[in-house]
Amino acid sequence: MGLEAEPLAAPHPYWPRELEIRRYVPNDRPTWHSLSFLFSASAALLTLTWRAAGWRGWTGAPMRTGRRLAICWFAICGFIHGVIEGWFSLYHTEIPGDQSFLSQLWKEYAKGDSRYVIEDNFTVCMETITAWAWGPLSLWTVLAFLQRQPHRYVLQLVVSLGQLYGDVLYFYTEYREGFAHSEMWHPLYFWFYFIFMNALWIIIPSILLLDAWGHLSAAQRALDAVKPKKH
Amino acid sequence: MGLEAEPLAAPHPYWPRELEIRRYVPNDRPTWHSLSFLFSASAALLTLTWRAAGWRGWTGAPMRTGRRLAICWFAICGFIHGVIEGWFSLYHTEIPGDQSFLSQLWKEYAKGDSRYVIEDNFTVCMETITAWAWGPLSLWTVLAFLQRQPHRYVLQLVVSLGQLYGDVLYFYTEYREGFAHSEMWHPLYFWFYFIFMNALWIIIPSILLLDAWGHLSAAQRALDAVKPKKH
Repeated sequence: MGLEAEPLAAPHPYWPRELEIRRYVPNDRPTWHSLSFLFSASAALLTLTWRAAGWRGWTGAPMRTGRRLAICWFAICGFIHGVIEGWFSLYHTEIPGDQSFLSQLWKEYAKGDSRYVIEDNFTVCMETITAWAWGPLSLWTVLAFLQRQPHRYVLQLVVSLGQLYGDVLYFYTEYREGFAHSEMWHPLYFWFYFIFMNALWIIIPSILLLDAWGHLSAAQRALDAVKPKKH
Repeated sequence: MGLEAEPLAAPHPYWPRELEIRRYVPNDRPTWHSLSFLFSASAALLTLTWRAAGWRGWTGAPMRTGRRLAICWFAICGFIHGVIEGWFSLYHTEIPGDQSFLSQLWKEYAKGDSRYVIEDNFTVCMETITAWAWGPLSLWTVLAFLQRQPHRYVLQLVVSLGQLYGDVLYFYTEYREGFAHSEMWHPLYFWFYFIFMNALWIIIPSILLLDAWGHLSAAQRALDAVKPKKH
């Protein structure tokens, strides 16, 4: 009677449960749409890059299996950073209420980390740098290896360290918040989305960082052996 | 009568002004103690490292002025990351109420960025990685250049990129919060403490990153020219 009810906060699947998410609209696509898009696009890129790296026309040089896989990795990173994380960087304010394909993907992922639907400050900053710095640099790394450019290992080192530091901060900030933004121990949301998917960007960049370190140190050692001792 | 007054939040010099800082105790040392410690310790390290880098006994190789200055920079970074930021990483919960020398230094600095007296999550994580990763690696970089180790430029690249990324995130997170944790445009606190002191870690690492990039690419180019074309 004259009193208008406040609109209740929309119920949502995110943690902590008391979180208020303005303008949240539940996904209208099934989860497997997002997941199959992510994995099939990555698989297609892997196949394409694998074949491209095998083509002798680039430099005439044969390419080892490990190196070909590393190039495929950077192609997938270019796609995930540039397109998927690029979308988050641009539209993070609209995602909770938006039904476009990539927004639904992010609303699904956020079940493992709700910082993606609350415009968490660190998350937005880190993702923006990932999208606009490590994304294009990943693609440049692909090209640098295909064309055997002299800075190919420098690029591998830069991108890998950038990914590693960003991801360490990503886990560390959430650890200090007691993993409050996820349903702890949930097999899909906590273990697969949050832990496994991000652990990839700890493990693989660490390996590639050490690989680049080894190659660059060897090159410097070789140069030091022939050049006069001048720093 | 029978009602006990709630203890009022202690008045403090931090921004935003309504910030509540538990257990805050104002510094009992004058500001110039902190500042002169920071700058005289840095100057002493610079002098010491400058002389050390000039000693021919290390490798018998002469060292260019720019290179000697870069080594001095890494020595100062080792001290600031390891000691000063290391202190923050360990004692960030106690600093607001503590009167030890380095806690007073941080309470002074926090006038330019109050995130240091409120245990801001990102700040604690970034400073902890800076202290325990870039700190020791800075000292290793000093040693690597003095001894002309083959990974000296790799270390320079790693430390510089780590500093740059951390500092970009530091400014970016605060920019997105509207510089709320400082008195905007204050000549000492905003411009000198917050902007200038941190801008150093944007400018110098950027230069050193490009320098390392150039050296490492040149080494790889030289190696590629003599080695069979094998990736």
